[in-house]
Amino acid sequence: MKKHNFSPGPCILPQQVFEKTSKAVLDYNGIGLSVMEISHRSKEFIEIMENARTLALEHLGLENKGYKALFLQGGASMQFLMASYNLLEKKAAYLNTGTWSSKAVKEAKLFGEVIEVASSKDANFNYIPKDYTIPPDVDYFHCTSNNTIFGTQLKTLPQTDVPVVCDMSSDIFSRNLDFSKFGLIYAGAQKNMGPSGTTLVVIKEDILGKVSRSIPSMLDYKVHLDKDSMFNTPPVLAVYVSMLTLEWLKEKGGISAMEKINEAKAGLLYTEIDRNPLFKGFVAQKGDRSPMNATFNLTDESVKEKFDTMWKEAGINGLNGHRSVGGYRASMYNALPLESVQVLVDVMQEAERTA
Amino acid sequence: MKKHNFSPGPCILPQQVFEKTSKAVLDYNGIGLSVMEISHRSKEFIEIMENARTLALEHLGLENKGYKALFLQGGASMQFLMASYNLLEKKAAYLNTGTWSSKAVKEAKLFGEVIEVASSKDANFNYIPKDYTIPPDVDYFHCTSNNTIFGTQLKTLPQTDVPVVCDMSSDIFSRNLDFSKFGLIYAGAQKNMGPSGTTLVVIKEDILGKVSRSIPSMLDYKVHLDKDSMFNTPPVLAVYVSMLTLEWLKEKGGISAMEKINEAKAGLLYTEIDRNPLFKGFVAQKGDRSPMNATFNLTDESVKEKFDTMWKEAGINGLNGHRSVGGYRASMYNALPLESVQVLVDVMQEAERTA
Repeated sequence: MKKHNFSPGPCILPQQVFEKTSKAVLDYNGIGLSVMEISHRSKEFIEIMENARTLALEHLGLENKGYKALFLQGGASMQFLMASYNLLEKKAAYLNTGTWSSKAVKEAKLFGEVIEVASSKDANFNYIPKDYTIPPDVDYFHCTSNNTIFGTQLKTLPQTDVPVVCDMSSDIFSRNLDFSKFGLIYAGAQKNMGPSGTTLVVIKEDILGKVSRSIPSMLDYKVHLDKDSMFNTPPVLAVYVSMLTLEWLKEKGGISAMEKINEAKAGLLYTEIDRNPLFKGFVAQKGDRSPMNATFNLTDESVKEKFDTMWKEAGINGLNGHRSVGGYRASMYNALPLESVQVLVDVMQEAERTA
Repeated sequence: MKKHNFSPGPCILPQQVFEKTSKAVLDYNGIGLSVMEISHRSKEFIEIMENARTLALEHLGLENKGYKALFLQGGASMQFLMASYNLLEKKAAYLNTGTWSSKAVKEAKLFGEVIEVASSKDANFNYIPKDYTIPPDVDYFHCTSNNTIFGTQLKTLPQTDVPVVCDMSSDIFSRNLDFSKFGLIYAGAQKNMGPSGTTLVVIKEDILGKVSRSIPSMLDYKVHLDKDSMFNTPPVLAVYVSMLTLEWLKEKGGISAMEKINEAKAGLLYTEIDRNPLFKGFVAQKGDRSPMNATFNLTDESVKEKFDTMWKEAGINGLNGHRSVGGYRASMYNALPLESVQVLVDVMQEAERTA
């Protein structure tokens, strides 16, 4: 039986993506070769790579606006480093909203001064700070659009004239934003875009070339841009699966259509969290809640064992909260159907009735 | 029809690996989840990662000898950088035997003095320099065991007391060496070990901790070692496919058994290259020839079109030489069956008969 997969990432992908990938691993489009054994210089793979790069820009509404898309390796963790290597000449401003922001700050400090404009660390990151100022003389402002661990999301972007760098790993392609406000967007694929093993990097080219340090080739955005994301052997399969997922997103109506479905899923679950006396949401202010990752705790720990058995028996996977928060986390990425959320809500109601 | 895949990488993998992967993409071991959607913190994936790391050390005969294995991202190109970031304090010695060695030299120069102990660049890398001295006061000696583009292979290692760092991307697991002579071995997976998207790094732990610079987390071998190769989300599918390939290698009898098969394949093809007046090997000295990548050219360019049609019609893929060498390159990695080499030899003989 197919599980209801609420895993925070790697996570559920569309069933048609699994099916197409499974076939392509045996034989890619009937050419007598597995997608895993084709050369990255073959016309087949160049088409996959170009298609994936184009679809990414298209979904974000960034075609013909001075942006380019790359599919790199190393996850967002490598981007913490690459962003500062490429952009941080003197000082940068960082908004600290969770574990991943904190890690980004740590890496940036190797390359220059980091001004933490605000942090919600004092309250275990259960809210998004809103009242802060970005100094006008920083090289860039860095933020994390969605905090996978704590279940918070930035709803609005601050006004600033400096380039905005954003880690969108856990909510890219899930909601509409004016993406042209960003100078650099990066996202590990393993939430809304594909399997683990590749990272989407979207760069406004004019923000590059402003630091004086030497940048090692593999960390240099310009090197990768000049080689159309093929400076070295790319992660062929991960890019292929990402392309299939971006195609699926297009079939589904793109980000706008997906945003509505995501709002419906989040609405269903958060309504239950707020209604059901057995549960309590982790995030302090409802306006900061993430539609991607809903974090919640039991109000009565004595029912834990029973509730855990119930959701596992209902075929639910990946609901345990991160150790920093405890309790539960329901990750509802694009590919998770509304029906899976309904199954979870039913279990929560059953737990209430039988408590 | 399944192709005879002589692609230089990404390349042919064992058919049973394609078949198991295809199934696991739909449902991993009957757990109701695709291998692409399981958490990297799940017991299933931790088992895959540990199994892959153990198998790698086991095949190399490096268990309980102070070595650890990592599965990282970024390919050998990222290792050019990481090796020097972690090991190069003052100066290092490099043997330059081809395009990849040259790239490794370039990255290392950002971190210290590089002494190029020898180079075969003067002859378009068609031989392996043998007469050179490694200064005793360098931090390490770096070499490339097999030159994929030029078709040469280091048959013996120089004697030295400094740590030996080796890029084994294109011949790891293909032949027996005393691997305990190496301080650091790295290899992009996409030849003998798996699909593109992960890189095996085997480190003798006592060579670390000797440089004074700050190392960014993602580039720090120690950070990855301390987290058992799970500092950040690993490329789940690429590690899984590598594990399957290492299991297949074990079933086949390991490196020693594989080496015999590889010698038979190489013997068959090189004998034909030397015998057939239509062809000429690229490598200057037979003793430097790589069993992995056989590079050869036509003696009469006028038969090129006909020969190209013939091998394509025989179901052969990936035989075009690299632009630096021209002509042809037959990559005969572990998973390529002897039968495929026989098909190529038959075509070469047919080309001779009908020329």
